[in-house]
Amino acid sequence: MKIAICQYNPIIGDINGNKEKILKGYNKGINDGADLVVFPELFLCGYPPLDLVEKKEFRDAVINATEDIAKQTTSVGLIFGTITEDYEELVGTGVYNSAALCYDGNVQFVQSKSLIPNYDVFDEVRYFEPAKEVKVHYFKNEKLGISICEDIWNDEDYWKKRRYPIDPVQKQVELGATILINISASPYAYGKRKLRHQMLSFLTKTDKLPLIYACCVGAQTELIFDGASMCFDSNGRLCMLGKAFQEDYFIFDTTKKYDEILDVEASFEEEALNALIMGLKDYAVKTGFKKALVGLSGGIDSALVTYIAVQALGKENVHVVMMPSKYSSEGSIKDSEKLIKNLGISSDKISIQPVFEKVIDMLKDAFKNKPEDITEENIQARIRGLYLMALSNKHGYLLCATGNKSEMATGYATLYGDMCGALAVIGDVYKTQVYKIVNYINRNGEIIPSEIVNKAPSAELKLNQKDQDTLPPYELLDRILKMYLEEQKEYNEICNVIGDSETVKKVLRMVDINEFKRKQSAPVLRISTKAFGYGRRFPIVQGWRK
Amino acid sequence: MKIAICQYNPIIGDINGNKEKILKGYNKGINDGADLVVFPELFLCGYPPLDLVEKKEFRDAVINATEDIAKQTTSVGLIFGTITEDYEELVGTGVYNSAALCYDGNVQFVQSKSLIPNYDVFDEVRYFEPAKEVKVHYFKNEKLGISICEDIWNDEDYWKKRRYPIDPVQKQVELGATILINISASPYAYGKRKLRHQMLSFLTKTDKLPLIYACCVGAQTELIFDGASMCFDSNGRLCMLGKAFQEDYFIFDTTKKYDEILDVEASFEEEALNALIMGLKDYAVKTGFKKALVGLSGGIDSALVTYIAVQALGKENVHVVMMPSKYSSEGSIKDSEKLIKNLGISSDKISIQPVFEKVIDMLKDAFKNKPEDITEENIQARIRGLYLMALSNKHGYLLCATGNKSEMATGYATLYGDMCGALAVIGDVYKTQVYKIVNYINRNGEIIPSEIVNKAPSAELKLNQKDQDTLPPYELLDRILKMYLEEQKEYNEICNVIGDSETVKKVLRMVDINEFKRKQSAPVLRISTKAFGYGRRFPIVQGWRK
Repeated sequence: MKIAICQYNPIIGDINGNKEKILKGYNKGINDGADLVVFPELFLCGYPPLDLVEKKEFRDAVINATEDIAKQTTSVGLIFGTITEDYEELVGTGVYNSAALCYDGNVQFVQSKSLIPNYDVFDEVRYFEPAKEVKVHYFKNEKLGISICEDIWNDEDYWKKRRYPIDPVQKQVELGATILINISASPYAYGKRKLRHQMLSFLTKTDKLPLIYACCVGAQTELIFDGASMCFDSNGRLCMLGKAFQEDYFIFDTTKKYDEILDVEASFEEEALNALIMGLKDYAVKTGFKKALVGLSGGIDSALVTYIAVQALGKENVHVVMMPSKYSSEGSIKDSEKLIKNLGISSDKISIQPVFEKVIDMLKDAFKNKPEDITEENIQARIRGLYLMALSNKHGYLLCATGNKSEMATGYATLYGDMCGALAVIGDVYKTQVYKIVNYINRNGEIIPSEIVNKAPSAELKLNQKDQDTLPPYELLDRILKMYLEEQKEYNEICNVIGDSETVKKVLRMVDINEFKRKQSAPVLRISTKAFGYGRRFPIVQGWRK
Repeated sequence: MKIAICQYNPIIGDINGNKEKILKGYNKGINDGADLVVFPELFLCGYPPLDLVEKKEFRDAVINATEDIAKQTTSVGLIFGTITEDYEELVGTGVYNSAALCYDGNVQFVQSKSLIPNYDVFDEVRYFEPAKEVKVHYFKNEKLGISICEDIWNDEDYWKKRRYPIDPVQKQVELGATILINISASPYAYGKRKLRHQMLSFLTKTDKLPLIYACCVGAQTELIFDGASMCFDSNGRLCMLGKAFQEDYFIFDTTKKYDEILDVEASFEEEALNALIMGLKDYAVKTGFKKALVGLSGGIDSALVTYIAVQALGKENVHVVMMPSKYSSEGSIKDSEKLIKNLGISSDKISIQPVFEKVIDMLKDAFKNKPEDITEENIQARIRGLYLMALSNKHGYLLCATGNKSEMATGYATLYGDMCGALAVIGDVYKTQVYKIVNYINRNGEIIPSEIVNKAPSAELKLNQKDQDTLPPYELLDRILKMYLEEQKEYNEICNVIGDSETVKKVLRMVDINEFKRKQSAPVLRISTKAFGYGRRFPIVQGWRK
């Protein structure tokens, strides 16, 4: 069977636009002689649709579009993810996350999702009921076992501890499926593609069946979908691999022999960079922003964000602002200007000093002669935020926040100051990873000036300030944070590895008490298994301390 | 049986503090001759604990504290909400939201929650597995049917459409329960108490059993728990009702006759006001803030928030700042000063004009001679935000955001400007409701000056500006918003009621496109069935428009 995989990029809620994409891909498949054309999970409404699913008018529009699409089908099969509804059902939502198989002018078969994920960034139990039945469908001399994303992630032989008691794909194997098809929308995290390859290879080898794993691509606010759809033969060998972080279209022939593909993931630096470029680009494209704005401090974070913006939107669409104060080092401007020249972008330089002095003057009575403290530092950061937002408002720029994950974790950032922005582009990238990515960018020659890379990190909000006056060394900090956040290690486990329990306690406390800042942060582009935002939910007011 | 209900206020994560509260209430119950002492759902860890539940050290601490408490029990029974864990379980989390019944030094019986809510503000499927079994427990000549919150909200006879296929309380009735006990943590929304009364009365009348419904009280960041625990006799008559928005303790004797209580809810104005006062107070108390700060504009919203702050923290702990500009009306200061006098609070008056002019001067080149627009308005709001945050930082004030629900819904607010603050105190109160509450406050004499109540709402960010230049009349706007948000009506249904479909479309569009602002707002104290924040989840980047 010749199966066309349409690894396309939907817009959540844009049902008409997504429908057009489905019809375009379907017709391309027909022209290319495919027997079956496959689109990812919930492609018709975009994933994740969140509470849009609770709107009846929205569900009706999706269901009507499904019928419209089906009417236009020939004998070539078309599978895409959509919403279905059981209006008779008196218990639960009666709404399903489904794969529709259409041909000959009708929806011929529907398989709904059986395993409804509800952890990390997933909230699907909020909307969807599990499938009432798992079936296979006879089509062109094959028995298709169609499943949806999570359905294939519960193999009893592969996982020691499982989330669900049933295995719908195993059921389809038992029902005599000859080809497995999984339509998916699986949010990106570095390392996950390797795991996916390993797990799916194990499964297809065990079940002796070919598998088409069709993935979404594109960014949806904070969530990035990396594409990289996979086709396996019945020996667990990966035969075809979709492009990462790009739309792709290709045909897999289950009767053909393929060379095995072994490498599925590039280096962290390359992957993360491409993920973030797509993340920013899709935010801009899907919201209608043409141009981006970055506040350039002379430090490495804003330099990286500027580079990402240039890659995402083109150098003619990126504007930066340097906003020196009396605490800014000479290098902060000189190094920024070098970067601006290297990237070929436009810039402004606007001092914050006169406004800062005016603010201090106006507030001095209300400050009641209290000594200088973090207040004055925050005022500087907030004037910068105010400048940036003013330029964003005046010229319609998308403002990129530049904070990294180490800062967001520890609260080493000013709310309404450097945290301003529509999108926290590198909010899921630790400081030590920022260096790695920048070195990768510079691998063939200096793009981000070495002066920026080599200087000691500083917020430059008071005299001779260095990040390391307040924070543990970044190498140590990031190790602790990674264990605490992504690996979800306990305090005692972290102490056992790190040794220095005082530092561990201090870091964990910083993370815990800064929940209030992160509540008000811009959405964070997610590239790890645990990013700040939607997938991590802690009470702001709480007394748990280790 | 004499049952003491401990309607206390826990702090999420403060396991030791909550444990002390349990022991104190238990000993009080013993002294008062109770047979059984009952605490609300998850009282030992506080509700909702959110992702703290995913920390093993946290769960272990809760489980150990449960054992510690049990060891201290006599023959008097003690029921409280806690976490239990099945370490052998290989499928799912193995973690349960449970009621522990302790006496004679041990946990004698555990009933876990069967119905796991996962809608609106509830995410419990993320953490908890449903009970494997529903049982009753024989104790002091009674068969106790113990259930947890949602368990009692799925009666087949009462609800036309149910969320779950099973009814654990019905099961306990069939098992011969003689007393029903439900421990609960049910977030407040105006109107819900009446529904609760109605539904529980129906249930107890039908089942011919007395019911103890023990509720949480207190605020947990945005969620307010109103207390008002209820005890019913076996004829569905409400015999005892706990205080609303206060801790309470009382003893219900299942053998005694009581007069029936018919009124369970006060007026919207009184209820909402008390809810918000408790909400702000608990945020401050539980995070350690002593003093609050409000930016006083001369408008009704900031006047109401200031009044709430005074009630919550005492007049000596509330400070306000007036921040006039050249667009401020004469009244904005005069009226504010009258309010300050009426409330007896301290204040500052700091003009934003000099800073505004300096900012405009610094940005004029970068503005490239573009005409004045919303940018200049936002700059004013952001300078005010900057002043307020500076005073908050310098003096340790809790900054209260003053935006109402109508503004948050339509995006009629400046991000990083008037949206600054730790808590959006009236972010779930429509503008028309703000008036109602203020009139209620003034019912026995003017506290909030009539000049503030009677002036036309204005942001005063440009000459002669009025809210109604941009927004539909508030009466109309709020009707549309309430249908769209709380009642979750569809566009067509709203048009059918309102008639003016252009205005409806415009309002719905404003709500939909301002998701990005609300993502970065302070937590909103919830008093309706659908507040902005945790219980309402829409994609920021999305193309759905009606």
